[in-house]
Amino acid sequence: MNSILIIGQSNMAGRGFIEDVPPIYNEHINMLRNGRWQMMAEPLNFDRHVAGVGPAASFAQAWTEDHPGESIGIIACAEGGSSIDEWTIGGLLARHAISEAKFAIETSEIVGILWHQGESDSYGERYKTYEDKLLSLFKHLREELNAPHIPIIVGELGHYLGETGFGKSAVEYNQINQVLSKVAYTEKNCYFVTSKGLTANPDGIHIDAISQRKFGLRYYEAFSKQKHVLDILDMEHEWIEKEAKRELTKNESIYVQSMKFALGQLSFEEFSINVSRINERKS
Amino acid sequence: MNSILIIGQSNMAGRGFIEDVPPIYNEHINMLRNGRWQMMAEPLNFDRHVAGVGPAASFAQAWTEDHPGESIGIIACAEGGSSIDEWTIGGLLARHAISEAKFAIETSEIVGILWHQGESDSYGERYKTYEDKLLSLFKHLREELNAPHIPIIVGELGHYLGETGFGKSAVEYNQINQVLSKVAYTEKNCYFVTSKGLTANPDGIHIDAISQRKFGLRYYEAFSKQKHVLDILDMEHEWIEKEAKRELTKNESIYVQSMKFALGQLSFEEFSINVSRINERKS
Repeated sequence: MNSILIIGQSNMAGRGFIEDVPPIYNEHINMLRNGRWQMMAEPLNFDRHVAGVGPAASFAQAWTEDHPGESIGIIACAEGGSSIDEWTIGGLLARHAISEAKFAIETSEIVGILWHQGESDSYGERYKTYEDKLLSLFKHLREELNAPHIPIIVGELGHYLGETGFGKSAVEYNQINQVLSKVAYTEKNCYFVTSKGLTANPDGIHIDAISQRKFGLRYYEAFSKQKHVLDILDMEHEWIEKEAKRELTKNESIYVQSMKFALGQLSFEEFSINVSRINERKS
Repeated sequence: MNSILIIGQSNMAGRGFIEDVPPIYNEHINMLRNGRWQMMAEPLNFDRHVAGVGPAASFAQAWTEDHPGESIGIIACAEGGSSIDEWTIGGLLARHAISEAKFAIETSEIVGILWHQGESDSYGERYKTYEDKLLSLFKHLREELNAPHIPIIVGELGHYLGETGFGKSAVEYNQINQVLSKVAYTEKNCYFVTSKGLTANPDGIHIDAISQRKFGLRYYEAFSKQKHVLDILDMEHEWIEKEAKRELTKNESIYVQSMKFALGQLSFEEFSINVSRINERKS
């Protein structure tokens, strides 16, 4: 199996409201929990009680469409509110992400890293020292994971920052974006993804759920084509509409029934009948 | 800070329905995520999308009542559906739990382990080999965590097993309970906790939320008094009623407001007003 490490702060973890987008269930997308793989459900990156939709689910969904019959695993290690200084070599977050990734490597091959971070560094001229810190982290991760050439995809900070709510303090997001872009252009196998057109939750800092679906598609475009993605993709809206209509497979349907049953939304009889019906289906 | 490692299968992780009990928020209870501590919210042990209330929250709440001003951390590594053979030395679950515990040890002292597991071994005469496997695991954990004398608390499997739903297959739960009890009585610093009177979700296998609150109190009684708990505690009902009326501290109140805001349940203005009001409070 292939796997992807996702790191950074809250917008990589995901704070899009789960109820705002059709759920993604896919038996070919796995998430690492307790060092093992299980079928995905959002939130994929449960760094906080309020975790929600991030870019990883639509990234992975797009990956499975390009790789029929194959599976992908998400190693989710993003941490809300973390600054670049909390991602130093030898620091807890980097060590923990590497530790999780090493569990994943026992049963998968890491083929990419998704990075989104910088809101917490968008003030106080922190952009002046950001570049070296990020480059050091990427170099360290490549060494530790023995993955010198895998693509690292760097997402731009939202253009809505610096205006309202919790986003108001991120006054230097433009400067951070310039550094992120520079890193992606100078570092080998590193690609930049625009946040053009993405919108925020009412908090003014977190990318909303529908925008996260789009962002994930852009991350995947950069990953799969190994190129910078500097504009909105033509297919974003169409993909999201198509995705909402996707029929679940037998396994996915049973997963959803099991989840509802486990949450007390179905009686055992209802659950049993529903699962029998699913099992009678042809596919 | 003191910390507690919780391991086993789904009833240690917790599947009680969150909405069935008053929430516990406590600024002196932390949970380990990404190798770092943060203030707790349930589910504490997010092994599955359907994770809910387990015994750890009321255990920790009772601990804080006995230790005013001090804090406790929960290292949550229980894995739903896991059998004792998935908790072998060198296996993924044990290695991952040890890895998480070692991150925790950097900033805390592990003072106890809570174990609840066995439903997945309550058939096919697995009880015949369970004792040695559990004793080996405990020995290994004590060595790896450099904690030779800390209490390990072993909870009994629910008496409702073997009857309905997913619990129906657990026909040999009585035999497993005998082994769990034997281990607790023979192993030093190991204590047994009864499941007397605890009831299940409609699935017939998972301890319901209110019973998990009680179970956590029994685990704490065994931990704090270093004794077996073989009967219902007189104070269980009273404690739960008292707990429902507990006033949140300033920090806890702000945490709840931040959570609601992050989930889109409050506008930024409402959030700001509410937080100002909380900050004006005396305590």
